[in-house]
Amino acid sequence: MSADRHEAPPLHPVVAPLAFLLGTWVGEGQGEYPTIESFAYTEQITVSHVGKPFLAYAQRTWGLDDGRPLHAETGYWRCGPDGHVELVVAHPSGHVELGAGTVSGTSVTLASTSVTGTPSAKYVRALARQVDVDGEHLRYRLDMAAVGQALVPHLRATLLRASADRRG
Amino acid sequence: MSADRHEAPPLHPVVAPLAFLLGTWVGEGQGEYPTIESFAYTEQITVSHVGKPFLAYAQRTWGLDDGRPLHAETGYWRCGPDGHVELVVAHPSGHVELGAGTVSGTSVTLASTSVTGTPSAKYVRALARQVDVDGEHLRYRLDMAAVGQALVPHLRATLLRASADRRG
Repeated sequence: MSADRHEAPPLHPVVAPLAFLLGTWVGEGQGEYPTIESFAYTEQITVSHVGKPFLAYAQRTWGLDDGRPLHAETGYWRCGPDGHVELVVAHPSGHVELGAGTVSGTSVTLASTSVTGTPSAKYVRALARQVDVDGEHLRYRLDMAAVGQALVPHLRATLLRASADRRG
Repeated sequence: MSADRHEAPPLHPVVAPLAFLLGTWVGEGQGEYPTIESFAYTEQITVSHVGKPFLAYAQRTWGLDDGRPLHAETGYWRCGPDGHVELVVAHPSGHVELGAGTVSGTSVTLASTSVTGTPSAKYVRALARQVDVDGEHLRYRLDMAAVGQALVPHLRATLLRASADRRG
């Protein structure tokens, strides 16, 4: 009944435009925001599939200085026609994010169509993501509009592919 | 930079009311809905923590007959004061779900406060979840209001605890 007992299937053709994201990526990033002190982090991103028309996405970060857990997020990538992509993500801060955008080559540009929070979550209005894969490197930038701020840079990181085509 | 390199911390006291959910659970369930044929599935649920004030949640199901991947979902549990609990979940169907409810003993009752979908997702209006842990058994029921239907039973399953206190 565990994932290991099921054969790894081929990638579903619908998500082939995002195949370049598959794998485990590790690296370092930097965070900033007008309301907080800047910080540096290590990160692991995993993108995997089970042969169905979506990719599973999970991310975690740790403080670069002391290894304490920082952020995490988890969700799924979807593909539509004509390079259209969608991202659905849950955040432990009590937010859920719907993103829509496009993939061109090995670059993805996304803007949130909705960010919704639980009653106890801080107010986040919008997120924008840019992800670029160049060979074995994945670089991303995340802008955020939260707690009264405009959509301004929040995170940027560079990760290396630590393992290839990852099946869920 | 992987999770394995970081020590397993103690559970954050804020999420202690949900500690009974921690672990890996495996079992079987049944699905029904007015618009589809009934189906049976095997399931694995993992609830883990990293010492922060949330629990990480991931679930996958496979067809009981042929082992093909069916549903998956992933997100986080949060706790507020006075037995209040929150759930944020991403679904590969293109939905994100915010749930709010209460925990009493080892039972959780949740109703969605919002279910939002990407442009390509089918319409889901509401979800309601009941989770009960009794010793080594976890039983849940999920009701769904989707594609023009009222909030009616969709899933019910019984799982056994396959491993205890799981750290992320």
